[in-house]
Amino acid sequence: MKQSIDLDTIHSPEDIRSMNIEQLTALAGEMRAALMRKLSTRGGHVGPNLGMVEAIIAMHYVFDTPKDKIVYDVSHQTYPHKMLTGRMKAFTDPAHYGDVTGYTNPAESEYDLFSVGHTSTALALATGLAKARDLAGGDENVIAVVGDGSLGGGEALEGLNYGSTLGSNFIVVVNDNDMSIAENHGGLYADLRLLRNSNGTAEPNIFRAMGYAYRYVHYGNNLRSLIEKFRSVRNIAYPVVVHINTMKGMGLRVAESDKESFHYAGPFDLQTGAPLKTAPAGTAPQAYTDIFALHMLERMKKDSRTVVLNAGTPGAVGFYPERRREAGRRFVDVGIAEQMCTGMASGLAKGGMRPVMAVVDSFIQRAYDQLSQDVAINHMPAVFALFHTGVLGMTDETHLGFFDISMITGIPEINFLAPVCRQEYIAMLDWAMEHADMPVVVRAPGGEVVEDDSRELLADYSRPKYEFVRRGGKIALLGAGNFFYIMREAADLLAESGVECTLINPRCLSQLDEEALDTLKDYDIVITAEDGTADGGWGQRVAAYLGSSRTKVRVLGLPKKFENRFRAAELMEACSLTPQAIASIACEAVK
Amino acid sequence: MKQSIDLDTIHSPEDIRSMNIEQLTALAGEMRAALMRKLSTRGGHVGPNLGMVEAIIAMHYVFDTPKDKIVYDVSHQTYPHKMLTGRMKAFTDPAHYGDVTGYTNPAESEYDLFSVGHTSTALALATGLAKARDLAGGDENVIAVVGDGSLGGGEALEGLNYGSTLGSNFIVVVNDNDMSIAENHGGLYADLRLLRNSNGTAEPNIFRAMGYAYRYVHYGNNLRSLIEKFRSVRNIAYPVVVHINTMKGMGLRVAESDKESFHYAGPFDLQTGAPLKTAPAGTAPQAYTDIFALHMLERMKKDSRTVVLNAGTPGAVGFYPERRREAGRRFVDVGIAEQMCTGMASGLAKGGMRPVMAVVDSFIQRAYDQLSQDVAINHMPAVFALFHTGVLGMTDETHLGFFDISMITGIPEINFLAPVCRQEYIAMLDWAMEHADMPVVVRAPGGEVVEDDSRELLADYSRPKYEFVRRGGKIALLGAGNFFYIMREAADLLAESGVECTLINPRCLSQLDEEALDTLKDYDIVITAEDGTADGGWGQRVAAYLGSSRTKVRVLGLPKKFENRFRAAELMEACSLTPQAIASIACEAVK
Repeated sequence: MKQSIDLDTIHSPEDIRSMNIEQLTALAGEMRAALMRKLSTRGGHVGPNLGMVEAIIAMHYVFDTPKDKIVYDVSHQTYPHKMLTGRMKAFTDPAHYGDVTGYTNPAESEYDLFSVGHTSTALALATGLAKARDLAGGDENVIAVVGDGSLGGGEALEGLNYGSTLGSNFIVVVNDNDMSIAENHGGLYADLRLLRNSNGTAEPNIFRAMGYAYRYVHYGNNLRSLIEKFRSVRNIAYPVVVHINTMKGMGLRVAESDKESFHYAGPFDLQTGAPLKTAPAGTAPQAYTDIFALHMLERMKKDSRTVVLNAGTPGAVGFYPERRREAGRRFVDVGIAEQMCTGMASGLAKGGMRPVMAVVDSFIQRAYDQLSQDVAINHMPAVFALFHTGVLGMTDETHLGFFDISMITGIPEINFLAPVCRQEYIAMLDWAMEHADMPVVVRAPGGEVVEDDSRELLADYSRPKYEFVRRGGKIALLGAGNFFYIMREAADLLAESGVECTLINPRCLSQLDEEALDTLKDYDIVITAEDGTADGGWGQRVAAYLGSSRTKVRVLGLPKKFENRFRAAELMEACSLTPQAIASIACEAVK
Repeated sequence: MKQSIDLDTIHSPEDIRSMNIEQLTALAGEMRAALMRKLSTRGGHVGPNLGMVEAIIAMHYVFDTPKDKIVYDVSHQTYPHKMLTGRMKAFTDPAHYGDVTGYTNPAESEYDLFSVGHTSTALALATGLAKARDLAGGDENVIAVVGDGSLGGGEALEGLNYGSTLGSNFIVVVNDNDMSIAENHGGLYADLRLLRNSNGTAEPNIFRAMGYAYRYVHYGNNLRSLIEKFRSVRNIAYPVVVHINTMKGMGLRVAESDKESFHYAGPFDLQTGAPLKTAPAGTAPQAYTDIFALHMLERMKKDSRTVVLNAGTPGAVGFYPERRREAGRRFVDVGIAEQMCTGMASGLAKGGMRPVMAVVDSFIQRAYDQLSQDVAINHMPAVFALFHTGVLGMTDETHLGFFDISMITGIPEINFLAPVCRQEYIAMLDWAMEHADMPVVVRAPGGEVVEDDSRELLADYSRPKYEFVRRGGKIALLGAGNFFYIMREAADLLAESGVECTLINPRCLSQLDEEALDTLKDYDIVITAEDGTADGGWGQRVAAYLGSSRTKVRVLGLPKKFENRFRAAELMEACSLTPQAIASIACEAVK
């Protein structure tokens, strides 16, 4: 008899612990169906969640959560976990779809231990929980759940290496679906394949080599297998890896067959997988990632020194599978390994290539030390192309594109360029790829691509040189990157009120154009705006430089705060980042 | 017949390539003797260099350097390499001892490919060289030399994982001396021991698991074994690990028996190993590292939640072996793995402990993303104790303590405290360890410990609150950390000239005490000084805040530059960081 489960009766893991296997199987079916409905309507991390339904049910069934502690890597696979831990309605009731974030979130539930969004952190966080337990004399299980893709990241490998020395209960569930966001890259993946193909019996075994006991679950979407194996390690007194072989996108044919596209997807048709919102075919590229990727493919034809690097997010920087095929060996995805990717860029430059590392803004911060040591100290002409920047980038607190200006401009010897429009973007990229004799960051403007033929392009961006777009009055408006256009609108507003002003596109944010700033020293007010935190950013450097002159300076930018799921327009308004607000500040100052 | 080699006849590796094994052996002996003379006189990385004499001779003998490319991890083991590549005099002639830096340095020689100083970078850099070679159709060997300690770092493990996928010549020499700076920590070290004990035959084998062919050299200080093995991999067409078992400190008894003390040492007696400069026994601790370590040992007795974490540099933060033994399991060295250490701190805090991660200033930048994601977003009360900070810290371009203020204060939710003296240091540490409900950085002042009973200590440092040490006039001097005392001297100078001023110890550098700053808005000048880069630092935040007031602001700090082997006094003078210069700036402004 087919069981039927009413999902809305599940309020906590306790509600599933008395179920039999048939009921649990029915539960998994209902959960997967609910997930498909929500994912196809609202979008989200499709493949990771569909692949982990059974494993998450089995963990909550076997382990005594929340006393037993589960830390999920990235935590983009935790929709089933949220369903079982008091948040079912957010997956069954469209009116409540927006109630939960896409990641674990301690503000939502005691079952969520950390706010997580970047990869490769779960092992390290869990070692701390295990050590705290051991010092306090506790007896709970500590479980780190990490995907095969995440496992290649430095913090995960460091954590894997250290965790086995704890000498106490430390359970690492390796969720191996043979995929990162895109395909995996790295020697350990051949070993994982060997283990999968030998039902976990082969040598070498990376986990044993790292000091762990080892268990393998070949049917990682089979509840009975999972439950049996998790029971066998519950309350284990030493570190163990449970390697589970799961199917990314399980149960949704389109996601099973196109794992990369359905890692994360917007709303889609459940039958065909077709996106519900598409741009008409043949329209011009509308994202800087597309402009970048197509331009690099062109450059590769003309300049054989061109190499594009990426760390595990090729689609997010415009290199979809067909473009990767076109680029061939001149596109290098190193897997989720930003540190080594940055070091490799330096090595490529030393070897005579012209490398560009394309990276999602929030992830470049995983390579601060490498930018400093491998690249900047060595003056290597490697280029870093940042995407999804600023307030119009990602809106989860873990993925903000707010911090790169402050972070990178603090490092010596890196030339940080902030183009305002497509034309300037290409000019800066071309200069960086052909002529630069230093490391260069080119920050793609946030938001839609702006076409602007009136910007003055330079043949050489090695020295800071501000573009004076308009000169006059005793008010100067300096707008960096896409915020240049807010300043231009403010200038227009002022002009309409008969107030003259000077309008500047600074182009470079890592060094000051002192000659240009010297001409502003007798101004009444200088206003800067940048699409990153004001705190520690470029505008504060301007303020400090002009600090000993008579001019007043007002620095506008984003708050130094982990904003979460914000609305860009509201946040900008709160930060006076509107033409109207800027025009008023200016008028106020000259009154 | 014993061969004799005149070291001063060796100008390049070509000069050793026609030698026979007896001559090479004699060469190694002479080089080791010269190294001992220099190291005992001048100090330096003793153990790493003595252990690598034979391997470096063998590499330059077998490989066609500089066409073949050797990248050394950390590069603190490259004194023998420098001897063989045109810089012998810097090791044989005391008058030239200062001619070379302690690391590879492209400015010194074409044989030095990168300026390196941080660990774990060689594999990543070498993957870039190998990939560049493959794209350009070259045929040179690319060799990465990495120590067992460095191998546990995230970038190294990422590089190890990726390197095996190159599918072409990529030779990884693992220099395994069974030691990091201190003892190793991590599961892979048990595997290395297993491999050493089985003459390289055991399974599991971490290198095979990562996709490499594998060779083992048991006598890693035997030229014949090394030469034979390196010859066997020369021009190899696929990635291979050559695992060599070396003796750290080889040939110097005191260094062989006390590997930790002789990893890096100042001048010492060659027979006894005794330091040539010692403080008299029984004197008070004179370094903040000692004050920290002793205070933490006391705290551990009173508060069982206290845990001190460190990533591979225990001695450099005051935790010498006897103190580690005293701390027992409340001191955790995770090996060279700052990322995972930072994540673990967060996990410990979540588990109810009060963790403090003690870290050399220049190495905290290896954990930017973890400070942000694992710690700050999660509001975890983990403490970060920074040492060897600022202009009085380390002076190699790769180890500067200049960047932490700019880097960390850009991250939201972290409270960055800058004590000025021992008393304030302890007060801030105690508050952070007991009461803070947020992440706290406590930056040990650079230079000698200052005793100062006159500072006003607070019971609560959670909100920024500036200490007004002196009030008056229209000049305000704000001195952060140890630079407070420069400001106090400047204030004294001004007082001597009859000029009144306000003197402030800001205590906190991550948030502004706006109430305090508001009282300065009608001042003639506000001068800030901090022991870090002015660019992106705390003073610029002050300048921006006061930007719309009438007061002028002058921000003093260190240059955004990779200064190398500088003299602190000269650099400070060049940056107007002297009481005299500051007093003049002040007087100039009020004239």
